[in-house]
Amino acid sequence: MSSPAIEAKQFYEELWRSVQPETSRRLLISALDCFAVKGFEGTTTREIAEGAGVSPAGIYIHYRTKGDLLFEIIRSGHQTNWEDTSAAMATAESPIQKLIAFVESFVIWHARFHTLARVAQYELRSLSEDQFAVVRDIRRRFQRALEDILEAGARIREFDVDDPHGTARAILSLGIDVARWFTGLGALRPEAVADLYVDLALRMVGANHAKPS
Amino acid sequence: MSSPAIEAKQFYEELWRSVQPETSRRLLISALDCFAVKGFEGTTTREIAEGAGVSPAGIYIHYRTKGDLLFEIIRSGHQTNWEDTSAAMATAESPIQKLIAFVESFVIWHARFHTLARVAQYELRSLSEDQFAVVRDIRRRFQRALEDILEAGARIREFDVDDPHGTARAILSLGIDVARWFTGLGALRPEAVADLYVDLALRMVGANHAKPS
Repeated sequence: MSSPAIEAKQFYEELWRSVQPETSRRLLISALDCFAVKGFEGTTTREIAEGAGVSPAGIYIHYRTKGDLLFEIIRSGHQTNWEDTSAAMATAESPIQKLIAFVESFVIWHARFHTLARVAQYELRSLSEDQFAVVRDIRRRFQRALEDILEAGARIREFDVDDPHGTARAILSLGIDVARWFTGLGALRPEAVADLYVDLALRMVGANHAKPS
Repeated sequence: MSSPAIEAKQFYEELWRSVQPETSRRLLISALDCFAVKGFEGTTTREIAEGAGVSPAGIYIHYRTKGDLLFEIIRSGHQTNWEDTSAAMATAESPIQKLIAFVESFVIWHARFHTLARVAQYELRSLSEDQFAVVRDIRRRFQRALEDILEAGARIREFDVDDPHGTARAILSLGIDVARWFTGLGALRPEAVADLYVDLALRMVGANHAKPS
């Protein structure tokens, strides 16, 4: 049986398989490990290099600064999450189906990639203004997509929502906070968290638990 | 009109008024400011001392290490939050009233003291094992109190809850995540967030929005 740490590493090998050459990918994975354990400010480039089996000078061939590594982690984290979530929504037709697809995908992503999600959600303050602008643009897509779903559902009375903006933010909160508490060490599977949170989200929008099969 | 930063500082002067002598309190407030902006690992004791108008050596009269300051911030944050929340529940009688009191108090605390809450929720990894055990003990009271409310409400059919543990964790998530996104800079007041989240929590437990007046 593989340990959770090894399992997680395979996830990131797979998630970042398009990052080439391999040394760039190894540096990204090592930086993620370091940032998750010690935070961005508490990590040195030397530690990142060591974790990737690269000389401290070798790191600069691939990334200009430690901040560039953080940006690449956060940017690609947001991007893959958005790709997963919009792909899940693509085949859904009604607002209720879209909401289920959104919450399921968003929650599973934050549980499965909880290390990446934690860095992506909680180390934003260490990005430069320009870097943050790129990430903010992706973040707004989640909020807007969810608000659109809630408003569409309210219009056709599938949902009963007074405050689509605040309710969308609350549903995002549920998913984002999974990255804080989910460890992957217990018996709880990402899919089980997603099942519960889909039910809770349907209740939050007053959808009367009418889950389509 | 006072700026949000000054308003926040007054909150902490008030919250920590029992911390004596005054220099200890000033160090706590300065450490909180530094940790919130740069994180625990990114902050030096020199910066904390400067922010409090104390010499770098003067800090050690009051706190042995930077870690002791972090612990005191996180411990007292959890403690005051618990005191507020249990006081709010004390006069509530039915499960539904207790749930409203809990969510209202918990959410307002995370919004009003969002700087403290952010450090208390997201810098736990920098505590020692012994320190974390103290904080975990307080954290479990929130989870247990909320689970008890949900179970009591389900028993008398005020609530419709399949998974009290997971649902309690999700309601806590909503409140905790407020500390991540709430800035106090816009027009949104802590009380308005609490109103929405009380309504959402009632929906999550299937309480049919039967808010008692």
